[in-house]
Amino acid sequence: MSVNAVLTAQQAPASAGAPDPMLIEDLVAAYRILAQQGVLDGFGHVSARHNRAANRFIMSRSLAPELVTANDLIEFDLDGNPVDAKGRSLYSERFIHAEIYRARPDVRSVVHNHAPSLIPFGVTTVPLRPMYHMASFIGNGVPVFDIRKSFGMTDMLVSDSKKGHALAEVLGQKAVVLMRGHGVAVVGSTIPIAVGRSIYLDINAKVQAQALALGGNITYLDPQEAQKMMDAGENRSYERPWELWKAKATGK
Amino acid sequence: MSVNAVLTAQQAPASAGAPDPMLIEDLVAAYRILAQQGVLDGFGHVSARHNRAANRFIMSRSLAPELVTANDLIEFDLDGNPVDAKGRSLYSERFIHAEIYRARPDVRSVVHNHAPSLIPFGVTTVPLRPMYHMASFIGNGVPVFDIRKSFGMTDMLVSDSKKGHALAEVLGQKAVVLMRGHGVAVVGSTIPIAVGRSIYLDINAKVQAQALALGGNITYLDPQEAQKMMDAGENRSYERPWELWKAKATGK
Amino acid sequence: MSVNAVLTAQQAPASAGAPDPMLIEDLVAAYRILAQQGVLDGFGHVSARHNRAANRFIMSRSLAPELVTANDLIEFDLDGNPVDAKGRSLYSERFIHAEIYRARPDVRSVVHNHAPSLIPFGVTTVPLRPMYHMASFIGNGVPVFDIRKSFGMTDMLVSDSKKGHALAEVLGQKAVVLMRGHGVAVVGSTIPIAVGRSIYLDINAKVQAQALALGGNITYLDPQEAQKMMDAGENRSYERPWELWKAKATGK
Amino acid sequence: MSVNAVLTAQQAPASAGAPDPMLIEDLVAAYRILAQQGVLDGFGHVSARHNRAANRFIMSRSLAPELVTANDLIEFDLDGNPVDAKGRSLYSERFIHAEIYRARPDVRSVVHNHAPSLIPFGVTTVPLRPMYHMASFIGNGVPVFDIRKSFGMTDMLVSDSKKGHALAEVLGQKAVVLMRGHGVAVVGSTIPIAVGRSIYLDINAKVQAQALALGGNITYLDPQEAQKMMDAGENRSYERPWELWKAKATGK
Repeated sequence: MSVNAVLTAQQAPASAGAPDPMLIEDLVAAYRILAQQGVLDGFGHVSARHNRAANRFIMSRSLAPELVTANDLIEFDLDGNPVDAKGRSLYSERFIHAEIYRARPDVRSVVHNHAPSLIPFGVTTVPLRPMYHMASFIGNGVPVFDIRKSFGMTDMLVSDSKKGHALAEVLGQKAVVLMRGHGVAVVGSTIPIAVGRSIYLDINAKVQAQALALGGNITYLDPQEAQKMMDAGENRSYERPWELWKAKATGK
Repeated sequence: MSVNAVLTAQQAPASAGAPDPMLIEDLVAAYRILAQQGVLDGFGHVSARHNRAANRFIMSRSLAPELVTANDLIEFDLDGNPVDAKGRSLYSERFIHAEIYRARPDVRSVVHNHAPSLIPFGVTTVPLRPMYHMASFIGNGVPVFDIRKSFGMTDMLVSDSKKGHALAEVLGQKAVVLMRGHGVAVVGSTIPIAVGRSIYLDINAKVQAQALALGGNITYLDPQEAQKMMDAGENRSYERPWELWKAKATGK
Repeated sequence: MSVNAVLTAQQAPASAGAPDPMLIEDLVAAYRILAQQGVLDGFGHVSARHNRAANRFIMSRSLAPELVTANDLIEFDLDGNPVDAKGRSLYSERFIHAEIYRARPDVRSVVHNHAPSLIPFGVTTVPLRPMYHMASFIGNGVPVFDIRKSFGMTDMLVSDSKKGHALAEVLGQKAVVLMRGHGVAVVGSTIPIAVGRSIYLDINAKVQAQALALGGNITYLDPQEAQKMMDAGENRSYERPWELWKAKATGK
Repeated sequence: MSVNAVLTAQQAPASAGAPDPMLIEDLVAAYRILAQQGVLDGFGHVSARHNRAANRFIMSRSLAPELVTANDLIEFDLDGNPVDAKGRSLYSERFIHAEIYRARPDVRSVVHNHAPSLIPFGVTTVPLRPMYHMASFIGNGVPVFDIRKSFGMTDMLVSDSKKGHALAEVLGQKAVVLMRGHGVAVVGSTIPIAVGRSIYLDINAKVQAQALALGGNITYLDPQEAQKMMDAGENRSYERPWELWKAKATGK
């Protein structure tokens, strides 16, 4: 793959064509929604798979999420090469997205964030677990990626395809993978689902921390309950809050 | 009841007539207030019993609370059937409201929410208790509804009359019922009381969590003190904050 | 005193004359500042002693703090009788203020609030202590008033002169008195000092709760350090933040 | 040094000339950013070393950070003497900045703040440690300055050169020094770095407190990982969030 990556870096990949305008609109909204909801701050990013090509995805140039507009979006191939960066700086961790799209055909949107509520669960022996139906998407568990296991001492960043691939392997078929000492990657079959999961994952982490602090015994959501919720449509695909979030994020 | 529900679903119930315009205004304000105060987010709902008919109640179509306007309100009967939905999507958990109105003639408003502060108390062995006079309405205890007891593994939603009935039974004559792994239902004899209780229940849960974390011995509000506060008018029926909340929610 | 109170209720006390316009401006600002800073919500109040008469004080009619304007302010005597209420509803707990002004000639402003951070310290065996120089005003301790000790089972409200007197006795010469299961009273020799203390008392309580949760040994501010800070001018009498708070509260 | 200080107080130091306008713009932005991000409230300050003279620095007159404009900035020498105060009141703790600039030629910006999240770590036996890559700048430890060790009982303020010097000695070559019962000083080689570190230090403290409360074993960022992150450019010198923060702080 590294040879391929070098080649691709020299020859920019061809574009799959203009994405669906609604995909662009939703992706820009996603950046702003995640900033407004406190999931992203000046760092982190969200991407969407290209609607015309499974081997292309769209994400912003290196920019604080709250500032992203349609003009900042760039098309990438699954080696993380931009179709046309126009000289702009890129997110060094675009490989998180690239390798998850490569490994998971069902995924059409990926969020990478450093929400403060989640960092503790990536560094402790206490597993993140679903406290209520809104977090059913983690009913089958949350794996933790420790970059040190395969790569030793690093700057903690998933800044090449190999590291992205290792992360995607730990993610497996789950919805969420925690990254030790770093953050999280969240996936979904649509932008609203990836965004909604990111928001409720943050809330669920706060709820679990508070529940543990109470000092009693906790009844977590049963994996079967979580599965039934997922089968019933996972919070109606977040359509209801998405309408609200998007209205607030776009000022419409 | 199930036969009746089927019939009613086929024949839409008759309207009890136009509700009092002030009831509509207060109910729309209630949606927005609960969103502004952080009790509701994109999910949850509030309803009011119809002023002309004890067997009718009003709530929004399926919509994020912050977006609700008078045009979104729909009249329902106590089987959860809409008088005229005009093809719009409905909250699947309207049965929480319907069955509480059926069981509790004194209740004229119901709130269902997923406030993060409350989820821990629904899943732990530590009971939610009143920390101060503002939470006197839980001085006689807070029952916890575990849907698993009667219905086994479910998607956690109170999405039919039977589940709503079971919830109303656990609520009994109390002001609040926690729902394990899900949220809470709060009732009141007026919209401001149901809203005010929802807001101070959230605050009280945060206060209790913080008090427990201090590690000392706690003196809870005595049930007699709580009762005397209730007898004295329960925070003057929340008139003072209601004036503020409504002004902020409606921009007037 | 009760006979006197009855007489005074029948004969409204004479006004001490128009207060200093700056006192009015600062008192209105104080209501709004304490709401903006999250110390007051729809409940609680702040008052100022009349600049022309030690036995008169000014506070709002019964109104949510964020809504208070100069027209809502009413002059009271130390029995809690209004000079001219114009038929408006009064705060039932104005006796907190009245009796503190009676007992403490040095006090010229009183705040009563229910800040969630403080409720735990009023109900636990863990004392509220100064964590840093900003809370030097509690360096000599924070007494706790338990209304039950003198009055048995009540509705928790300090709603007459006797209860206000008992509270003032527990306050003694301190800056703050916690009220078990209810809230706090904070005093100062100026409005900015009473307001500033209320704001930093809230922050200090949050800091102490967080420090206790860390699980190590804590070095509290030494009483001598606190005294030296007080002698050096107690945060320069809050002049610096007051300028900011007032600008934000009044939109100037 | 004290004799020198007296002399300098009598003879105002000469100006090093007008600073780079961009330095002024960034410093004003820094005050506002730190207030908007909740690191500063009505107290605390940020300074920058003069671009024309290593023995001069710029900071505001005594003013709440949110109100600072270019007109409020004053040039100081390393004894804390203003070039031309124009009779305006000065921050009594400007010696924190002066002595750090004297001791640390690499430092070009200093922040002093009282962020509530940090106070606990200054008073407890539990050390502040890096939870994730964003806090790599404390990978080599966070010293704690206890003013009592050298100065006995004080008003806790670093209000002269001697105290500033003692603080700078405890800081040593680190990025951060906690001040027991008071706050913190944070340094950087640019204004964005000092500001960015201040913001992520606050977040890291909250994350660590939450992680400790979970009750499991914690894997902290390894010092080698932190060093690699620093070597790789420490969050790209905070350029990405600085663009966002500055845009929000200046309304541009």
